[in-house]
Amino acid sequence: MSTTREFAAVILAAGKGTRMKSDLHKVLHPIAGRAMLDHLMAQVDALSPSEKVVVVGAGREQIEGAVEGRAKTCLQEPQHGTGHAVQMAEEDLKDYSGDVLILYGDVPFVRSSTMDMMLDRLHQDDAPAVVVLAFEPDDALQYGRVIADEAGHISKMVEFKDASDDERACTLCNSGLMAVKGADLFDLLRRVDNNNSQGEYYLVDIVNIARDDGRHSAVVVTDDPGEVAGINSRAELAQAEAQWQQLKREEAMTAGVTLRAPETVFFSYDTELGRDVVVEPNVVFGPGVKVGDGSIIKAFSHLEGATLARNCSVGPYARLRPGAVLEDHAFIGNFVEMKKATLGEGAKASHLTYLGDTTVGAGANIGAGTITCNYDGYFKYQTVIGERAFIGSNSALVAPVKIGADAIVAAGSTVTRDVADGELRMERAEQSVKPGWADRFHDTMKKKKAEAKK
Amino acid sequence: MSTTREFAAVILAAGKGTRMKSDLHKVLHPIAGRAMLDHLMAQVDALSPSEKVVVVGAGREQIEGAVEGRAKTCLQEPQHGTGHAVQMAEEDLKDYSGDVLILYGDVPFVRSSTMDMMLDRLHQDDAPAVVVLAFEPDDALQYGRVIADEAGHISKMVEFKDASDDERACTLCNSGLMAVKGADLFDLLRRVDNNNSQGEYYLVDIVNIARDDGRHSAVVVTDDPGEVAGINSRAELAQAEAQWQQLKREEAMTAGVTLRAPETVFFSYDTELGRDVVVEPNVVFGPGVKVGDGSIIKAFSHLEGATLARNCSVGPYARLRPGAVLEDHAFIGNFVEMKKATLGEGAKASHLTYLGDTTVGAGANIGAGTITCNYDGYFKYQTVIGERAFIGSNSALVAPVKIGADAIVAAGSTVTRDVADGELRMERAEQSVKPGWADRFHDTMKKKKAEAKK
Amino acid sequence: MSTTREFAAVILAAGKGTRMKSDLHKVLHPIAGRAMLDHLMAQVDALSPSEKVVVVGAGREQIEGAVEGRAKTCLQEPQHGTGHAVQMAEEDLKDYSGDVLILYGDVPFVRSSTMDMMLDRLHQDDAPAVVVLAFEPDDALQYGRVIADEAGHISKMVEFKDASDDERACTLCNSGLMAVKGADLFDLLRRVDNNNSQGEYYLVDIVNIARDDGRHSAVVVTDDPGEVAGINSRAELAQAEAQWQQLKREEAMTAGVTLRAPETVFFSYDTELGRDVVVEPNVVFGPGVKVGDGSIIKAFSHLEGATLARNCSVGPYARLRPGAVLEDHAFIGNFVEMKKATLGEGAKASHLTYLGDTTVGAGANIGAGTITCNYDGYFKYQTVIGERAFIGSNSALVAPVKIGADAIVAAGSTVTRDVADGELRMERAEQSVKPGWADRFHDTMKKKKAEAKK
Repeated sequence: MSTTREFAAVILAAGKGTRMKSDLHKVLHPIAGRAMLDHLMAQVDALSPSEKVVVVGAGREQIEGAVEGRAKTCLQEPQHGTGHAVQMAEEDLKDYSGDVLILYGDVPFVRSSTMDMMLDRLHQDDAPAVVVLAFEPDDALQYGRVIADEAGHISKMVEFKDASDDERACTLCNSGLMAVKGADLFDLLRRVDNNNSQGEYYLVDIVNIARDDGRHSAVVVTDDPGEVAGINSRAELAQAEAQWQQLKREEAMTAGVTLRAPETVFFSYDTELGRDVVVEPNVVFGPGVKVGDGSIIKAFSHLEGATLARNCSVGPYARLRPGAVLEDHAFIGNFVEMKKATLGEGAKASHLTYLGDTTVGAGANIGAGTITCNYDGYFKYQTVIGERAFIGSNSALVAPVKIGADAIVAAGSTVTRDVADGELRMERAEQSVKPGWADRFHDTMKKKKAEAKK
Repeated sequence: MSTTREFAAVILAAGKGTRMKSDLHKVLHPIAGRAMLDHLMAQVDALSPSEKVVVVGAGREQIEGAVEGRAKTCLQEPQHGTGHAVQMAEEDLKDYSGDVLILYGDVPFVRSSTMDMMLDRLHQDDAPAVVVLAFEPDDALQYGRVIADEAGHISKMVEFKDASDDERACTLCNSGLMAVKGADLFDLLRRVDNNNSQGEYYLVDIVNIARDDGRHSAVVVTDDPGEVAGINSRAELAQAEAQWQQLKREEAMTAGVTLRAPETVFFSYDTELGRDVVVEPNVVFGPGVKVGDGSIIKAFSHLEGATLARNCSVGPYARLRPGAVLEDHAFIGNFVEMKKATLGEGAKASHLTYLGDTTVGAGANIGAGTITCNYDGYFKYQTVIGERAFIGSNSALVAPVKIGADAIVAAGSTVTRDVADGELRMERAEQSVKPGWADRFHDTMKKKKAEAKK
Repeated sequence: MSTTREFAAVILAAGKGTRMKSDLHKVLHPIAGRAMLDHLMAQVDALSPSEKVVVVGAGREQIEGAVEGRAKTCLQEPQHGTGHAVQMAEEDLKDYSGDVLILYGDVPFVRSSTMDMMLDRLHQDDAPAVVVLAFEPDDALQYGRVIADEAGHISKMVEFKDASDDERACTLCNSGLMAVKGADLFDLLRRVDNNNSQGEYYLVDIVNIARDDGRHSAVVVTDDPGEVAGINSRAELAQAEAQWQQLKREEAMTAGVTLRAPETVFFSYDTELGRDVVVEPNVVFGPGVKVGDGSIIKAFSHLEGATLARNCSVGPYARLRPGAVLEDHAFIGNFVEMKKATLGEGAKASHLTYLGDTTVGAGANIGAGTITCNYDGYFKYQTVIGERAFIGSNSALVAPVKIGADAIVAAGSTVTRDVADGELRMERAEQSVKPGWADRFHDTMKKKKAEAKK
């Protein structure tokens, strides 16, 4: 990796993204739980850039908010083409003398190794003015072509519509991505004109301008045409998601995770699964999930921001929200929700339960239908349940409240005051008994029902 | 569209559908939440037919019940072939002088534009006696062939088994669908004979009979062979469902809906989704759902007969049943069921709740584990919850009951009487405290457990 | 079937299964809810073997535990190749004179009909010394070849790397499975040497040794190359699962089951579904499920060890655990869990309920949010609910407890003592009413909230 080389990334993101038909900026649409733009920035960051400049236009407030503190933004308004867009970054890069990598916010899956290859090529002995990233798709028809010799020196960049038959027969296609020395970039860009049918300044023209100066440019070719695929519609977004998921699933299985039906499991960009984790069909992982060795995630579970230690069992129908922490051998059953809650070693919450803002001690048993009442409409409060405590079914624990170790809360109780260690707490009225009442009720109601049907 | 032309549709549905192995009539099996027959009738209705006659046989009571008030039915019993089946409709069409379109209940996806094209062809200057709908499948081997000239005039209809090599080389296949002038149809049908190995009267023979009269017939060809695919087994039913879903998913994405995993989202025939709606993986839409702009449907949700306004959030695990109405910014969380219930603007029911026959005012908060007790075993009753009311967790609201605006129901209460505006209502017994009881219980039970294991 | 022929099966399962990256022995990984090894043993058992010997090595304790009482095990330690592995079984088969079938624990889907064909071949008039099972894959490149004449007599077994071009052109590949007369097997094995690059004793060499004795061997060829596919990684495990599911889904549809989205339904090896059963999208069947005619399983349901009679309706989001029994027309709604529980004819549990260790009588109605409190932390207890009983919503039934026929439990009650037939039971405290309290609370809390934000 070119760790000692200085470079800046210019990311073009000024387009309107009309085909998305969305109020959300195109490059902020998520794939695997992370915005397209953030996927791209993560790959850039892996190479330790000196600067990142995102060129914004339509919907710029959204992007400015999203990258605040992580990248500069500069405005392209109005928008006169890709060459014009890169020029907008000149002010932000005026004190900067390293290389410049030109990327696109809607081409989010370019690998850092590819970026590195481009930057590296810029510094080889033949010193190209511009490095162009090309790809060889299965069907090259619609793309602009890169006409280059065996050494990778480019003789011509040509749009498909302007290409001769011979040029069209060439299958090397222009991805639009480039690496250029900062010292050259803006000088070349200033000489790009807009004498074309669209009246736009095209970035690609810098290759031909350099050539007219007697300088050559070089092509590097990605071995994975998929990494330069652009995303312009929701259908392409879904395809990108599907491809990402496919790779992640294979990676997980190779690492020793059982996916009974891989095509039904959806990961986030940062999901971490240990060895011998078993994931049943139909599981969704939101961002921020780590699962320890030997844990099982049963069908229809939904996890985000959750941390599971070893040999935990959750689901089916477990809903673990951010801040859910399960210690070794903890057990979450069906229709159970956790949020900012810790379940101690070997503790269990098996059915129909909500644990919010709660700490459950090791070995405790939370009965079916238990609700932690953590909210009064204004603030959230904590519930603390001691080790080996037993919370009877259908109980409501009104926070802030503390249940002691080994304590028992009787079924159906609403607990509003702390329960001491080893204590039994019961909130229950007398059971009133009305013999025969139900029989009389049935008689009356059956008559009413019969009348209602008339 | 031929809106001024008069036509009747005859829909053949007398077959036994043996391969379905079902007590339900084949044409009543649903695809995308609507019976096959209803898909077909909807396309017919788009052209404003004068009459619809469904020819029934086996299981006729089911179809008669299904189409009552929407189409006539006539009985074919016993069943002597397609020509015989159409003849059965003569009585129902005796006062009718327009065109007749012959369709099949198990070929449900013929588009109204194709039907229109067939009817239109019947009225062109060359006045064909019969118009036959043909298709060109990828593999034509098993189908009957339509031998026609460049003008689309048919020289011969031929079964595959009777076809010469030259005829088999022709890839134009007979769909079975026809358009015939009513004045001709029954005259031609009367002359069809059953001198064939099956002893059946074949509809297709009317083309050859017309030709013997010196009249020509014409072919029109669908550009989508899929629309004339027949459904004869559950596997074909599943394939038709899959194809329908695929088209609907693409249509939704094109219109500006995000489907993170399109292949896991199942729509109904009438699902309506606004712009910037996001649908997470594993969502099922039953009939009658409308979702407003900007709303999100989280994973594992199941909606039917539900109306969501703008910027609502439901799920994961939301179960919205018919009559569920969410106003702008309403929020439904996990394991929540709504039925005939309205959730006002910005109101929330976040966890483990059942809202049935209920109206919730704007800004109200329904705590975890809240149950509306709307049924006494005989009748259903209404619950009305006021604006900004706060229903504490694990409460039971026994309908009919009214909770006032800004009122608070304390956690764990069973409310049987109306609560006034701004009032606190609490149903709760004293908490009994038994220090040390739990410790003694544990000691006793551990001993019992140890003994039980001996 | 060769029911009168005596044979023993030797199943090789001593490999390390390194590519699985698992602490669980490779052959114990489940497909469709049953361990690979058990799939294979079921096919063997269909032929009534005299003996089954599993050769174990790494992780032998796991296999010994799994097959205890069902097969002998013998240890191969250290592991010197397949020939060496089979030799280990000699001791266990010393008093045995029938045929021997050599199988592999990680090749689990060999059909009993194929095994039978191999054994049968051994007894044909030409009396082959060894019968080899071969297959013809689409791409034969990497496999060892079986060079045989038209009569199926093998002239040579050859590894791909040692094969000539002519031999490589032969597409008959060695599966590794063999049938050998017990009288020959160990004699041939003793003469196998390990003069090869791996220093291993290869089972396949017995064919060449027999040939050197002047005895021929014979090949039989499976018509389904898939049945001899080995499983060596989690990805291959997932593929095997997918293929198995695909077959089972087609089988179910052919038998008269509607699968609206077959690719989203996951069966177990023993799932039994009646005619006109409808399975909605996203349903998981664990082992031991039987569903009677006309029942519907709605979306997102999870069933294991459950028995449904006719015309039941469960789900969406039904979780039926082992011992769940539904009688005719029983109804389970959303977010309901059953475990060791019977729901009588026409009885209903529609919402948010847990029924554990419970019997519900015919026609009873279990209200939303009902919890059977079946566990005190040490033992489980029974709940018995009578016919036509009505359990009000949000009730807790503390077992052991019995609710009589036609009895009513009022909403929100915790019931700890038996309720008689026709009786009303209510556990409920007085409702305390505090007019204006909530208004004052809101005022106070809004101020606190405003302060907290400063």
